[in-house]
Amino acid sequence: MHIDAIDTPAVLIDLDKVEANLRRAQDYADAHNLPLRPHVKTHKLPEMALKQVALGAIGITCQKIGEAAAMADGGLTDIFLPYNILGTSKLDRLADLHARVTLSVTADSPETIAGYAARFGAERPLNVLVECDTGAGRCGVQTPEEAVALARQIAEAPGLTFGGLMTYPPKGGTARADAWLQEAKTALENADLTPKVISSGGSPDLYRAAEGTTTTEYRPGTYIYSDRMQVAFGLGTLKDCALTVKATVVSRPTPNRAVLDSGSKALAADPVPAPYKGHGHIVEYPDAVVTALSEEHAVVDISACPEKPAVGDTVRVIPNHACVVTNLFDTVYLVHGDTVEREAVITSRGKLR
Amino acid sequence: MHIDAIDTPAVLIDLDKVEANLRRAQDYADAHNLPLRPHVKTHKLPEMALKQVALGAIGITCQKIGEAAAMADGGLTDIFLPYNILGTSKLDRLADLHARVTLSVTADSPETIAGYAARFGAERPLNVLVECDTGAGRCGVQTPEEAVALARQIAEAPGLTFGGLMTYPPKGGTARADAWLQEAKTALENADLTPKVISSGGSPDLYRAAEGTTTTEYRPGTYIYSDRMQVAFGLGTLKDCALTVKATVVSRPTPNRAVLDSGSKALAADPVPAPYKGHGHIVEYPDAVVTALSEEHAVVDISACPEKPAVGDTVRVIPNHACVVTNLFDTVYLVHGDTVEREAVITSRGKLR
Repeated sequence: MHIDAIDTPAVLIDLDKVEANLRRAQDYADAHNLPLRPHVKTHKLPEMALKQVALGAIGITCQKIGEAAAMADGGLTDIFLPYNILGTSKLDRLADLHARVTLSVTADSPETIAGYAARFGAERPLNVLVECDTGAGRCGVQTPEEAVALARQIAEAPGLTFGGLMTYPPKGGTARADAWLQEAKTALENADLTPKVISSGGSPDLYRAAEGTTTTEYRPGTYIYSDRMQVAFGLGTLKDCALTVKATVVSRPTPNRAVLDSGSKALAADPVPAPYKGHGHIVEYPDAVVTALSEEHAVVDISACPEKPAVGDTVRVIPNHACVVTNLFDTVYLVHGDTVEREAVITSRGKLR
Repeated sequence: MHIDAIDTPAVLIDLDKVEANLRRAQDYADAHNLPLRPHVKTHKLPEMALKQVALGAIGITCQKIGEAAAMADGGLTDIFLPYNILGTSKLDRLADLHARVTLSVTADSPETIAGYAARFGAERPLNVLVECDTGAGRCGVQTPEEAVALARQIAEAPGLTFGGLMTYPPKGGTARADAWLQEAKTALENADLTPKVISSGGSPDLYRAAEGTTTTEYRPGTYIYSDRMQVAFGLGTLKDCALTVKATVVSRPTPNRAVLDSGSKALAADPVPAPYKGHGHIVEYPDAVVTALSEEHAVVDISACPEKPAVGDTVRVIPNHACVVTNLFDTVYLVHGDTVEREAVITSRGKLR
C-alpha cells in the first residue's frame, strides 16, 4: 500500500529512520561501554522494544504497571519501573508483574519502601533503586544522606534488595548530576551499601551520557523517533524525526491561512522550545507556522510559503512532542519511504495505571 | 463503591453537577426560545448525549465521522457534523452515516461542496451549511458574498440541500458575529437562498447566546462538565466543574514540593487563561500551583498551602481543559458525591477520523 491511501489524521513511523536512530545510539553506547535501557513511552509498542533489545539494549524502562504488563505480554523480560508504586491495588499488580519478569522499581520515601517491604517476601525479593533529584526538580531524595538512609531501609527489608541509584537529570546537567551521584556513591560505599546500578536518562543528553562517570545504565526514550523538542534540545536534525502526523488541508479560508484536520487531539498542545515556534513542523511547507490548535483543527500561517497548499492536499507534520502523540492514536502506520509495511496497534497506549 | 476504592489516575464525573449544568443551560435556552444542539466532544459518551436530548436538546454536534458513528450506535438520531469532509474514504463513511441518521455537514470551499455533490444523490440529499469566519480566525468564508456563492453552489447540486449558516464565533464576540451573520442572511434572502438554520456555539458565551438575534441553534460543548478554562472565560465557578482527575501524591521530595501521578497523559498540557496559572486546580489544596507536567508526573508547589499533603494521599484535580482529558482515558467513573454509580467506557474517545 502507498502512504497516499492512508486516511488522515494518522501517525506514520519511518522504519528506516527508526533503525538509524537506534543504531546510532547503540553504537555510541557500545563505544562507551554504557548499557542502554530504553524508555518505551515514546513508541508504546512491544515490537519496537524487542528491536531495541535485539540491537543491544539490556532491557526496557516503563513508568506505569499497565504499560509494563503490555510489554511483558509482548515478550519483554527485563523491565525497570522508575516510579513510586503506592497502594494495595497497584502493589498487587506489581507482584503479578514481578512473578513473570525481571523487575526493578524505585522509591524516594520511607512510605514507598514500607509499602514494598510489606508486600514482597524473601522468596522472590523486589529490587529497589533510590530515586535522586540531581537538579530536575521532580521526584527524588534531595541529599546523598537521604539516599543512604533509604538504601539502608531497603537493604534491611527481607523482601527487598537495594539495587542502586536512579536519576532523571536536568537537561544539559550531566556533569551536575554526576557530581551529585559521585558523592552519593561514596557515601553508600562508606555505609557498606555499594550501589550495583546507577541509572541516568534523557534523550537530549544521550550523546553526552558517557561524560557521567558514575552512570552504569542509560535510559533514553524519545531518541527512537525524535521530534521538534529533541531537535531544539540539540539531538540531531528534523531529518532524523521518524514520526510524522499525516494531515489533510481541510480549509484555505484566506490567501495566508490553511487549516489542517490535525488539532490538539492529534498533535497535542505541548510547547516547543526556542528557536522553534508553533505546534509542529510541516515537512512540505517548512516556512509555515502552526499558530493555533483547537481540538480538531490546526490553523497554519502560510504567508511565508512561496507555494501554498490547496484544499484536499495532504502534508506530514513533525510534532513538538512525539511521545504524547503516540498516546493519542490507537494505531500507527509503519512505513518504508512511501510504502506502508503495515498498521500496528499501540498496545500500551492509555495505560495510565 | 466509595470513590476511595478508585485507583489513580482516574476521571470522576459528578453526575449531580452534570445535571445542574445541563438544566441551567436548557432553562436559559428555553427561556430565550433558542434550541440547543450540544457538542459531544466534551464527554464522548452516548448516554450523556441522550441525557442532553432528554432535557430538550434538538440533536447533537460531532466533528469527526467516527465520533458521530459511535453516537449513532448509542442511539442518537440527529447529528450535525460542522466539518469539511474531504476524500473518498471519508465521503463513503459519511454516506453510511447519512443512511441511518438525520445528518447535516458544513463546507467553506467549492472543493468541499464538489465532493459532496459528486457523492450524494437526489433520493436522499445531504444537508449542507456554509461555515462562516466571524472573527475566530479558523475555518469559514470571509465575506457574506462568498457565503452566497457557496449557498448557490449547494442549492444547485441535485444531491444537496442548503441548510443555512454555521459559525464558531470569537470568544466575547457574539455581537460581532451577529452583525456578520445578519449581513449574510440579508444577502442570502436577496438571492432567494433563505437560510433555514443559523448555528452558533461556544460555552464561554453560552449565557449571552440569545443576544445573537440571527442565531436559530446554539452548540455549547464544555458547559456539561466545565473546567478551569471555562471558569476563566466567565462560565460559572470552580464549584460547577463536574470532571475531576483523581490523583495520588507519589512524592514529597521537599517541604514545598509534592508530585502527583497525573502527568500530561492525564491532565493534558493545554494552558489556562489568566488569572489562573499552572496545569490544574487541586480541590483539597486551593493554594497549590501545578507548576510543571511531565508525562507521568505533575509537580506541585505547595509553599502557599497551610496544610501539606503526605505521600499516599489522594486529591482531585480540576483540569484546565476537560475535553482533552476525556480523550486521554478509556473510561470515566460516574459518581454521586462520594459514591460511584459505575464505570463508563468512553466509546467515542480517540475517534480521530
